[in-house]
Amino acid sequence: MEIEVTQEKLSKALNNVSRVAVGKVTLPILNNVLIRVEKNKISLVTTNLDMAVVDFLPVSESKDGTITVPARLLAEFISTLPKGETIKLSSKDDKITISAGKYSSIINGTPADDFPELPEIDEKTAVVFKMGVEEFKNSINQVIIASSNDLTRPALTGVYFNTYDNILAVASTDGYRLAEKKIIKNVQSEINVIVPTATLQEVLRAINEDMEEIEISFNEDLVRFRLGEVEIISKIIDASFPDYQKLIPKDNNIKITIDREELTRVTKLAALFARRSASGSIILETKKPNILSVRSVASELGENDSNLETEVTEEGKINLNSRFLLDALNVLDEKNITAEFANRISPIILKDKKSTDYTHIIMPLNQ
Amino acid sequence: MEIEVTQEKLSKALNNVSRVAVGKVTLPILNNVLIRVEKNKISLVTTNLDMAVVDFLPVSESKDGTITVPARLLAEFISTLPKGETIKLSSKDDKITISAGKYSSIINGTPADDFPELPEIDEKTAVVFKMGVEEFKNSINQVIIASSNDLTRPALTGVYFNTYDNILAVASTDGYRLAEKKIIKNVQSEINVIVPTATLQEVLRAINEDMEEIEISFNEDLVRFRLGEVEIISKIIDASFPDYQKLIPKDNNIKITIDREELTRVTKLAALFARRSASGSIILETKKPNILSVRSVASELGENDSNLETEVTEEGKINLNSRFLLDALNVLDEKNITAEFANRISPIILKDKKSTDYTHIIMPLNQ
Repeated sequence: MEIEVTQEKLSKALNNVSRVAVGKVTLPILNNVLIRVEKNKISLVTTNLDMAVVDFLPVSESKDGTITVPARLLAEFISTLPKGETIKLSSKDDKITISAGKYSSIINGTPADDFPELPEIDEKTAVVFKMGVEEFKNSINQVIIASSNDLTRPALTGVYFNTYDNILAVASTDGYRLAEKKIIKNVQSEINVIVPTATLQEVLRAINEDMEEIEISFNEDLVRFRLGEVEIISKIIDASFPDYQKLIPKDNNIKITIDREELTRVTKLAALFARRSASGSIILETKKPNILSVRSVASELGENDSNLETEVTEEGKINLNSRFLLDALNVLDEKNITAEFANRISPIILKDKKSTDYTHIIMPLNQ
Repeated sequence: MEIEVTQEKLSKALNNVSRVAVGKVTLPILNNVLIRVEKNKISLVTTNLDMAVVDFLPVSESKDGTITVPARLLAEFISTLPKGETIKLSSKDDKITISAGKYSSIINGTPADDFPELPEIDEKTAVVFKMGVEEFKNSINQVIIASSNDLTRPALTGVYFNTYDNILAVASTDGYRLAEKKIIKNVQSEINVIVPTATLQEVLRAINEDMEEIEISFNEDLVRFRLGEVEIISKIIDASFPDYQKLIPKDNNIKITIDREELTRVTKLAALFARRSASGSIILETKKPNILSVRSVASELGENDSNLETEVTEEGKINLNSRFLLDALNVLDEKNITAEFANRISPIILKDKKSTDYTHIIMPLNQ
C-alpha cells in the first residue's frame, strides 16, 4: 500500500472516522482505522460494531493494499504535521511509514484480515430519502433532546423515522416529553424504523459546511447516511416505538401566544430556585385578562414570580420540570410561540407560531 | 439596606466574588456573599477562609445596612435579568427583595453577624509593590505551571515572591521543574513569601481589560492584591521555599538556539508515542555539525524521529518528560529560544533568546 496526499485532506478524513474508533478491551482492533487503497481511491473505515464510518478520499498517486493502524494516534500525528505538507504513507510487514519533509515515523499496525467485516446496504431493496443537510441537522437537533438514555427501554434510545399521510416524520420520547418534526412531504415509500441516538449524533458531527444533501437509505436492519465522501452505516433498534400520535392531546382548552425569549428568561429565573429544590418544578399560570405568571414552587431559598403579558381567555395552571421547558424553548425557532394546556391534567403542547411542522409536548408534574 | 444599581455593574461585581463562595458543609455561610452598604458604597465580600475577595461598587441611591445571601444564586439571578435594567435590592428580616421591571424575587439570607471576620493588611508595616497588570499576568502564567498540587509539600504549592540583587522575582517548582521570572528591578524592600497558587489563579481570573496596575501588599502572614475595585486578601504559605538558585546549573556545555514553533511541533509528534508508553519520555540529541534530533523512546506503537537544523558544537543527549517540555515551550515568548544541557546529568535550561528574565529548568529522566 502506498499513497501520497495533502496534510489537509488526510487530516480531515481521519478526524471524520477516528471518533468511532474507541476500542474494546476484548477487541482491540476496533481502536484501529482500516486503510484500503484500490485504484487511486482510499477508503478509511472505523467501526464500533454498532456502526461504521467510512470516508472516501481520492488521491493522485497510489499502490493498492490494506492495513489497519491505531486511529487516534494516526489522526493526531497527521494533524500535528504542518499544513501544506505532502504526506507519503506506505505499508510493509504490518507497519506503516509516514514521511513528510523532515518528519518521519513508523506506526505498528495489524493485518486488515482481522478487521470486522462491514455490513452493507442492499441497494436494490433499500428505501431511500434525500433532503437538505441543513434542514436535516436542525430537525434532528429538535427531536433528539427528547430521546432517552435508559438502555432498559431500547425503543426510547433512538429517533423514530416513520411515514404517515405521505409525510416522513422523526420523533423521540423519553416518557416525560415527546418531540416530533415532519421532515419530508409527499413521500411515496413507507418506513417505520428507530435509528440509535448515538448514530445520529455521529451523523451530526460529520456534517460540515461543504455538504448540501444527505441521502438516507434503509434496509430491514440497517440504515446508511451518505454525506459527500462520508458514509455512516448503523444497525437499527429492534423494538416497537410507542404509538405517539395518541399521546398528543387534542382538546387542550388554554392557548396562549408568547415571546419565546421572554418566556425563556422568566423560566431561567424561576429555574434558579426550582433546580435547587427537590421537585425542580415551576408553575405556569394564566390570569385574566392578560397575565402569564411563571414562578418557582415555594422553596427554602426564597420566592420568584414573573409576569408576562399575553391575551388570556381561560384561567388555569400547570406544573412543569423547568429543564424540560428550557430544552424545548431552546430548539423552537420563531420569535413567537404557542403553548396549549388544560388545567393540570394533560401535557402542554409547544409550537412555533407560524410553522407547525414541529411539535413538542411535556408531561405535567403533580404538585 | 437598600440600593439601586444597573444590571451590568452588579452582575460583573457578583461574578468577581461568587467564584470563591464554594461553601463548606460545616460552615454553610461561606456559600454566601456579604453585602455591606455604607455611605453610598457597596462592598460585596466572599471568603473560603484561606482567601477573601472584595468588590467595591459605587451607587447613587442607598440606605446603609448589611446582609448575606447565597452568592451563586444571587449572581445567576442578576446575570439572567436583561441588560440595561435598573435593579433595586432591599433587605428586611434577613430576606433580600430584588425588583427590576416586571421581575421580582425574594431570596432568604442570613444575618451578617455570622459572617467570618476578614483579615486586614496593616497599611503602616506593609511592603508594597506595583506593576503593570498585563506584565504581572504573563509572568505569573509563566511560573505557575511549575508549581505542585502535592499538599504534603506545602512550600511547592505556591509561587515564591523573593528579592535578591535589588530584583523582585517569582519562582515555582514541583521538584521536577523550576520556573523563575524577574518581575521588578531596582526594588529597595526585601521580601521572601510564598503565595498560594490557588490565590494567584483567583487573581488572574479577576483581571479584566479595564485594569492597568496591580498593587501587591505583604504583611507578616497576609498578602493583598488590589486591582481596580477588586481586592483579594489571602493567607501566605508558612513554609520555606527551596534555595532554588543552587538548582540552576552553571556549567551546561551544550547550547543550541532553535525555532520555538518547530521544536514544539516535533515534541508534540514524539509525545504522541511517548505519552502512550510507560515513561512518557522523549530524547533530545545534538549531532554534529547541525542536527537536533527529537525522538520518542522506542515503544510498542512504533518509532518517531524528527531532525531540526541548528548549529551544534558539542554532541550529547538528554531524556525529558514530553509534557514538561511542551508546558515550557508554551510559556516561552520569543520566536527563537535557547536550550542548554550537559550530557544527561544536569537539568536543561530553557530561555528566550533575547530576553533573559525568564528561566525554565527541567530535570532529566533516567533512560
